[in-house]
Amino acid sequence: MIPTSLDWCQQQDANDPLAAIKDRFDLPEGVIYMDGNSLGVLPKGVAERINTVVEREWRTDLIKSWNTADWINLPARVGAKIAPLVGAMADEVVMADSTSINLFKVAAAACRMNKGRSKIISEPGNFPTDLYMLQGLSSFLGNDAQLQTVDRNKIIDAIDDDTAVVVLTHVHYVTADMFDMEAITKAAHDKGALVVWDLSHSTGAVPVDLNGAGADFAIGCGYKYLNGGPGAPAFLFVAKRHHANAEQPLTGWFGHKRPFDFIDDYEPAPDIRRMLVGTTSVLAASALDSALDAFKGVDMGLLRKKSQAMTDLFIALTREKLMEYGVGLATSETPAKRGS
Amino acid sequence: MIPTSLDWCQQQDANDPLAAIKDRFDLPEGVIYMDGNSLGVLPKGVAERINTVVEREWRTDLIKSWNTADWINLPARVGAKIAPLVGAMADEVVMADSTSINLFKVAAAACRMNKGRSKIISEPGNFPTDLYMLQGLSSFLGNDAQLQTVDRNKIIDAIDDDTAVVVLTHVHYVTADMFDMEAITKAAHDKGALVVWDLSHSTGAVPVDLNGAGADFAIGCGYKYLNGGPGAPAFLFVAKRHHANAEQPLTGWFGHKRPFDFIDDYEPAPDIRRMLVGTTSVLAASALDSALDAFKGVDMGLLRKKSQAMTDLFIALTREKLMEYGVGLATSETPAKRGS
Repeated sequence: MIPTSLDWCQQQDANDPLAAIKDRFDLPEGVIYMDGNSLGVLPKGVAERINTVVEREWRTDLIKSWNTADWINLPARVGAKIAPLVGAMADEVVMADSTSINLFKVAAAACRMNKGRSKIISEPGNFPTDLYMLQGLSSFLGNDAQLQTVDRNKIIDAIDDDTAVVVLTHVHYVTADMFDMEAITKAAHDKGALVVWDLSHSTGAVPVDLNGAGADFAIGCGYKYLNGGPGAPAFLFVAKRHHANAEQPLTGWFGHKRPFDFIDDYEPAPDIRRMLVGTTSVLAASALDSALDAFKGVDMGLLRKKSQAMTDLFIALTREKLMEYGVGLATSETPAKRGS
Repeated sequence: MIPTSLDWCQQQDANDPLAAIKDRFDLPEGVIYMDGNSLGVLPKGVAERINTVVEREWRTDLIKSWNTADWINLPARVGAKIAPLVGAMADEVVMADSTSINLFKVAAAACRMNKGRSKIISEPGNFPTDLYMLQGLSSFLGNDAQLQTVDRNKIIDAIDDDTAVVVLTHVHYVTADMFDMEAITKAAHDKGALVVWDLSHSTGAVPVDLNGAGADFAIGCGYKYLNGGPGAPAFLFVAKRHHANAEQPLTGWFGHKRPFDFIDDYEPAPDIRRMLVGTTSVLAASALDSALDAFKGVDMGLLRKKSQAMTDLFIALTREKLMEYGVGLATSETPAKRGS
């Protein structure tokens, strides 16, 4: 039985090693916000940073800021800041575009690396844009690879020698069910398939260890637990071993080896930057960059423990007070099986 | 001979019907800025608008703002504001993603509408990302359509019954050479080919009449003459007659007919929204939205006349003062043949 008394809750708060972190956010008075999954609250410092971007970088310094404010490296700099949150090296993550577009890029790259295999595996009820983008991709690839959706507990069995890539969301957007990233990645690799992990509902909320799991590709959004603001730019991960081989079809000038040579022929950058496409929104990227400072020195293990304890409490209170009104439980009661 | 005396210039300024428009921009003291082609100056009102987005919409109202601040319709609202600047109907233009990504979408849609034709025609020396995106697209399409670059004065001759789509930049980014949009569009249509116009270097600087020219598709950036800020979102145009047939491969949830039904299968929106992909950056979109107010009531014919006169003066002064130092002329001396 989990204690649910106010006294007990206040005692937990008093002993909370993460309590001070709350001060890093600019929460509106009197609001208890539980919608981080849709839009994170405003971290302190972001408003000032945006003001600097507008007043000094844009208004005063104008195009000089591409160099003086290092706008040009924002995708890599923000990527490097996200990397430790997902168990990646600094140069394996880049900030770019939207989650949907990033999914297209990495899934297309994976299909090309596994040309001749005809299946893209995902699960029914995955976050819709993931399925839609895979439908668009497979329809575009002609008969090369078709999307097949398989129930989550049958995915490992469904992966075979004809599977090009498995595309799954690490933490489910409705149930918070969490996949065993390592087990599925290993099962895919055993059959020669690649894996794309959508980390939109895990990054910043649960510890993620992409390299520990041997992951190939990952994507994620910036506006949920990373608190980058409404429609913040997304990010993507490509394991270093794939940098030289990953070819994606959205070959824009920011993915070019020498974008400012302005030559006619595309040559992909040798590193993660080959996943970039067009010009970065500096306003949006700067907000996300600043927001990520809220994670400075945060122990993700402690954060995970707190999140699990709070959800346990919430479930207990729901059971105690709300179930009689017909409120049910969509998520797992086993803390280790669910995200945040 | 164009007069170049200071007196004459000051007289022109005194009689300039557009003089008051300069006050709509927050120019840094003492700066003469001629780099609008790379990054427009900050329009007044934008800083305040961004502040409202951060402080009220994001910080205070949080996810309610999708409805209360109408974030959900930003792509359509900003598109409708751009439409009159390019001779389109309000519901033929939408703000989305980057110019590069928009090019991929409309060129892919055009190729699919003209399946079986094997050529995508563009010009060598076109803005690099346009060529790169077409290379990425054609490489992904397999043997369906390959990019062929043809010198600008031979383009009409090169269009044949095997041409799927012609992709050209209306005003060239280096020389400011301007294509005759109507003549080329007509020549393409005569052979059953479609045309994509890149308006990045024309929108907001020269009058553009997409529907007058019978155009099929167009794209353009938001950070140059539209002054939307560094890396502002881009826009795209699809002629109404193509709305039901244009199928693009980046089928993200914001292009879905009912994005919030969260169903597994993609169904394209019946209108221009089918060209949307992922979540819009609200910060970036709001800056562009506010910046577009600088065009309120501006007569593009007068603006064009002023721009031509200023370039004529600049050419005359260059000839008078700079040519002896080896400075040459890249653009046409005929005002009607060049953009801004």
